[in-house]
Amino acid sequence: MEKLKVGIVGLGRLGKIHAGNIANKIRNAELTAACSIVPAELEYAKTELGVEKVYLDYREMLRDPDVDAVVIVTTSREHCWQIEAALDAGKHVFSEKPLGVDVEQCHMAEAAVERHPEKTFMLGFMRRYDRSYAYAKQKIDSGAIGTPYLVKATGIDPEALVEGAIRFAKTSGGIFLDMAIHDIDLMRWFLGAEVTEVYAMGATFKHPAFREAGDDETGLAVYRFANGAMGMVHVGRTAPYGYHVETEIVGTEGTIRISAVPEKNLARLYNGAGVVTECVEGFPERFAEAYLLEMEEFVDCALTGRQPGVSVYDGTESTKIGYATTEAWKTGKAVKL
Amino acid sequence: MEKLKVGIVGLGRLGKIHAGNIANKIRNAELTAACSIVPAELEYAKTELGVEKVYLDYREMLRDPDVDAVVIVTTSREHCWQIEAALDAGKHVFSEKPLGVDVEQCHMAEAAVERHPEKTFMLGFMRRYDRSYAYAKQKIDSGAIGTPYLVKATGIDPEALVEGAIRFAKTSGGIFLDMAIHDIDLMRWFLGAEVTEVYAMGATFKHPAFREAGDDETGLAVYRFANGAMGMVHVGRTAPYGYHVETEIVGTEGTIRISAVPEKNLARLYNGAGVVTECVEGFPERFAEAYLLEMEEFVDCALTGRQPGVSVYDGTESTKIGYATTEAWKTGKAVKL
Amino acid sequence: MEKLKVGIVGLGRLGKIHAGNIANKIRNAELTAACSIVPAELEYAKTELGVEKVYLDYREMLRDPDVDAVVIVTTSREHCWQIEAALDAGKHVFSEKPLGVDVEQCHMAEAAVERHPEKTFMLGFMRRYDRSYAYAKQKIDSGAIGTPYLVKATGIDPEALVEGAIRFAKTSGGIFLDMAIHDIDLMRWFLGAEVTEVYAMGATFKHPAFREAGDDETGLAVYRFANGAMGMVHVGRTAPYGYHVETEIVGTEGTIRISAVPEKNLARLYNGAGVVTECVEGFPERFAEAYLLEMEEFVDCALTGRQPGVSVYDGTESTKIGYATTEAWKTGKAVKL
Amino acid sequence: MEKLKVGIVGLGRLGKIHAGNIANKIRNAELTAACSIVPAELEYAKTELGVEKVYLDYREMLRDPDVDAVVIVTTSREHCWQIEAALDAGKHVFSEKPLGVDVEQCHMAEAAVERHPEKTFMLGFMRRYDRSYAYAKQKIDSGAIGTPYLVKATGIDPEALVEGAIRFAKTSGGIFLDMAIHDIDLMRWFLGAEVTEVYAMGATFKHPAFREAGDDETGLAVYRFANGAMGMVHVGRTAPYGYHVETEIVGTEGTIRISAVPEKNLARLYNGAGVVTECVEGFPERFAEAYLLEMEEFVDCALTGRQPGVSVYDGTESTKIGYATTEAWKTGKAVKL
Repeated sequence: MEKLKVGIVGLGRLGKIHAGNIANKIRNAELTAACSIVPAELEYAKTELGVEKVYLDYREMLRDPDVDAVVIVTTSREHCWQIEAALDAGKHVFSEKPLGVDVEQCHMAEAAVERHPEKTFMLGFMRRYDRSYAYAKQKIDSGAIGTPYLVKATGIDPEALVEGAIRFAKTSGGIFLDMAIHDIDLMRWFLGAEVTEVYAMGATFKHPAFREAGDDETGLAVYRFANGAMGMVHVGRTAPYGYHVETEIVGTEGTIRISAVPEKNLARLYNGAGVVTECVEGFPERFAEAYLLEMEEFVDCALTGRQPGVSVYDGTESTKIGYATTEAWKTGKAVKL
Repeated sequence: MEKLKVGIVGLGRLGKIHAGNIANKIRNAELTAACSIVPAELEYAKTELGVEKVYLDYREMLRDPDVDAVVIVTTSREHCWQIEAALDAGKHVFSEKPLGVDVEQCHMAEAAVERHPEKTFMLGFMRRYDRSYAYAKQKIDSGAIGTPYLVKATGIDPEALVEGAIRFAKTSGGIFLDMAIHDIDLMRWFLGAEVTEVYAMGATFKHPAFREAGDDETGLAVYRFANGAMGMVHVGRTAPYGYHVETEIVGTEGTIRISAVPEKNLARLYNGAGVVTECVEGFPERFAEAYLLEMEEFVDCALTGRQPGVSVYDGTESTKIGYATTEAWKTGKAVKL
Repeated sequence: MEKLKVGIVGLGRLGKIHAGNIANKIRNAELTAACSIVPAELEYAKTELGVEKVYLDYREMLRDPDVDAVVIVTTSREHCWQIEAALDAGKHVFSEKPLGVDVEQCHMAEAAVERHPEKTFMLGFMRRYDRSYAYAKQKIDSGAIGTPYLVKATGIDPEALVEGAIRFAKTSGGIFLDMAIHDIDLMRWFLGAEVTEVYAMGATFKHPAFREAGDDETGLAVYRFANGAMGMVHVGRTAPYGYHVETEIVGTEGTIRISAVPEKNLARLYNGAGVVTECVEGFPERFAEAYLLEMEEFVDCALTGRQPGVSVYDGTESTKIGYATTEAWKTGKAVKL
Repeated sequence: MEKLKVGIVGLGRLGKIHAGNIANKIRNAELTAACSIVPAELEYAKTELGVEKVYLDYREMLRDPDVDAVVIVTTSREHCWQIEAALDAGKHVFSEKPLGVDVEQCHMAEAAVERHPEKTFMLGFMRRYDRSYAYAKQKIDSGAIGTPYLVKATGIDPEALVEGAIRFAKTSGGIFLDMAIHDIDLMRWFLGAEVTEVYAMGATFKHPAFREAGDDETGLAVYRFANGAMGMVHVGRTAPYGYHVETEIVGTEGTIRISAVPEKNLARLYNGAGVVTECVEGFPERFAEAYLLEMEEFVDCALTGRQPGVSVYDGTESTKIGYATTEAWKTGKAVKL
């Protein structure tokens, strides 16, 4: 069996998830190399994942002929140049979202992708690969809800992790860039149309530190699309019950709602509080399978010369919309795209 | 508008519910008289419900020409003779369940009903009038689940009220007579068949006082029906989450399940415990509307000369089955009917 | 028992609900008079409800000393002058929502209410009296979700009734005035704050007739409140599954969501389609109990000299916000209040 | 990394699932050999899974030094001797349930296991490894529901697969042996006690072919346990909505219910039928992850010299209880163990 030899760059929380999947759970992939500027992460790759070649220097890893594909899980501002460098070095590329931190960067990445049409490029919009989201898309494509014309998306991080969010509030780019990218991508994907205008607002009621950092705890944005459809995004960081990602797609003949109750599993407790559904605690738990499925798709695309459903342009568009949303939020005015 | 003049006997917890409905919520009924051996209950009838005629002596109330119909909410052992006496006095009769505490009594009540076919007689199997149960019956009658062949019934009283149950454990007749009568009636109603055999058992894990009184905390019984159908009843007294009545009817083409989550209302709390549905606290809350609807049906039947869907024979059958279940439970052997 | 003598004006679909409740289900009320410009409605009042005094002329009914209170269920443009006239005639007044069709009218009604502080005035925001909404409010007031800072409200009429909506599209004032008033009131009630800005949009994907009439099929609006809180309203007219009113209140310590599944009752069908919850078909079914409870509250207020929780100012505010929403929708610009 | 070299015997529907997991999804396992009496299955192993060594003769595979462990997925009557032969050949053994088709066989397997304490033996009660069941067990062990005293288990195969069940009705051993083994194991696991008596019955309402073959379409059994606890098992073969495995554990302080709605995923459809949850279609879909997790546990046990939670005695006990249930069903009498 042919195996894709993968080098990963970045082994933080999410990087470890990807690395573990590639090393242990994908039969036609092999984690041959790892790169990080954090020595402890390289140590982790060696001892926990059995990676033999580790690099402090990304460009050095790109010169390794034992690396067919690069998986980029670094901080957002590094994504675009690393994408370009990897493609120019003849590697297939998987990059975590967002594509870039500004639109100019994104266009640079687009150009690199266009220069190397024979290389697979994929962006990590893993929600599209989640079993429930994929089912919803398939239902919609089969006409189950007629023409979809409104998406209502909710994404709330757990209060249990709020300290981390506060710590990064000054540098995160604000709640919409930080948290709404997946929801923006889902709206575009489900509606099959592009945003033409956005209006947004924010609120901070629990942790004033967000506002002090120029950020907000919770954001609410609404969108008009070119085909007349509409969208709504509610993002937040303080769900006391866990991690809550919910999406509703309203169509002319029906509605699909995904995960109104962010259940941990199929068990329900009947106790003194009532009937209780415990909730997923964070994105690694909620999207564990989606992370695996998207990586399987990337590996399969790279080995068979296909391009995945998620393109570099999806990355540029969602970044553009994220910036427009942020501008709307900051100025209090509707922003046209 | 013609109004049915009603005299009630028994004004305990459930009696007050019926009395309040008749006095205040049923337009074509009037609570003209009340009878009780408890003076405080008569005082309640006078001051809270505006009843003018109150009686310590049941037979005296039966002589009152201002009473067209009698509603019997006394202790179970009084039901049958009070039914007979009322019918013989020319009154319509509504009696709470169970019909009687032995089958002989029940036959006496049957005879009285047969002697007075022009009088309406109704037994208080109010679950049949609950919106969800009535909907299930209608669905089944319309063929929505094909032929029903299995009923699984659950009825658990709240732990919050267990002290009362312990107090009456010695005299209640045991958990199946005390708690399973409604479930037995529902099985017969949904399956349209009679029980031919029952096997039963009990357990006591939380309050040894039940076992010390010769009773059990929880009971489990299974039934064969004449047409080959099957039934299961699980009754208990210690639900920490509230009052739980759940019924499932399995048919050849589908299943209907009523109240798997005994929700208090349509609100869901998302809090530190997870997603929580608070539960109904007791039968008065769960079946408030059913108590009203069954009484409206009784009043309407009496005024128009109809007989309701629940007959005296339903009372005899459910009592017979209750006794057979109790015998099965006590002897550990299957009992044939 | 003292009874409130009520005259009703308007006996259309909703008028019949109120009239039936007053005539038959509220013990301390009596429907003594009815007024309508439609003779068939007066005939209905006489024959179905036993009302003895019927009027074609509203002012004539106001002169009837046998009328203590007036219940106004006429078309929206009549509400304000009828409120004023009734109060000036010494009657208690219950008026259906909206208070008026413009803010000037509303101020006239306010002045009338202020002239007669000894008379009870109540506006028909019945959702506040729905068991689930009242429970949510009580939970919130008890601190169960901390400080509420975001309300997401959805109200969608059934596709089954869309023909009626199309017929009235030209004169309804547009989807937000027609359908969002209850949601606007709920946002204000739950958040305890006033709207300062609104942004809105609409879409029509199924029935072009709405757009041809200058209306939209679906509307989406977001609100800023004076205390920094936020709101979202999604209204529509084409739910294929029934009548869908859902409300979510997000607070610093938890969230309450009401009726994510607009269940008809507690039964679930397991059939070839999956596990199915049938939905309520319209507002009379969904809010049957709320209509009764609000009227009981009105009657009790009138008899005891109290004022209810819903004031004339709630009517003015919701109307103002409804107009601002409509302006935002029509102009595509955020509108400040 | 050390890898366990596995030989599989039997590559039918379930065999393929295990083989695929071992070959592709478990990092420290390798599928080195496959055995089947069906040549097409061996062809499948070679071409689809890359297995190099294939055997028509089981004993020949046992002589292969490249096989550390054997996974047995043959028909039930072969399990015990194959277990014995493999252990005696020095292999670790994983066997599908049931352990054997009679108790004598089971004791033979027990003796083999006892002869080779250094070899890992595991029985395929995969439900224990399902995320929701494992969570329930952990909750129960942590005291979340107090002392568990009643388990209600339901397992219904989809109507879509009924033809296969009819075909095997004559040889399946009857509905309880065929379908209740997992439920019996779960009862024992959750209650931590052994069955002392069983009473059972069956019904056939849709497909008379079952009865003609001496079998039943649906079975209902109740159990007493040595510690006073109780159990109920409802098995069937004709669920029109899919594959339904549901389990409820009732304890003194609460209840846990798993999968009352056998949801396919987290999406809900709101359409003309109401609010619909599509259901899982069969055991491979419902327990896909559990099959993987149990095999990971087996591999880890074998590599580290541990014994898993599921022992050979669990196999004997569940088989005993399965036979006793069958006897109770056939004779209509309670059967003591």
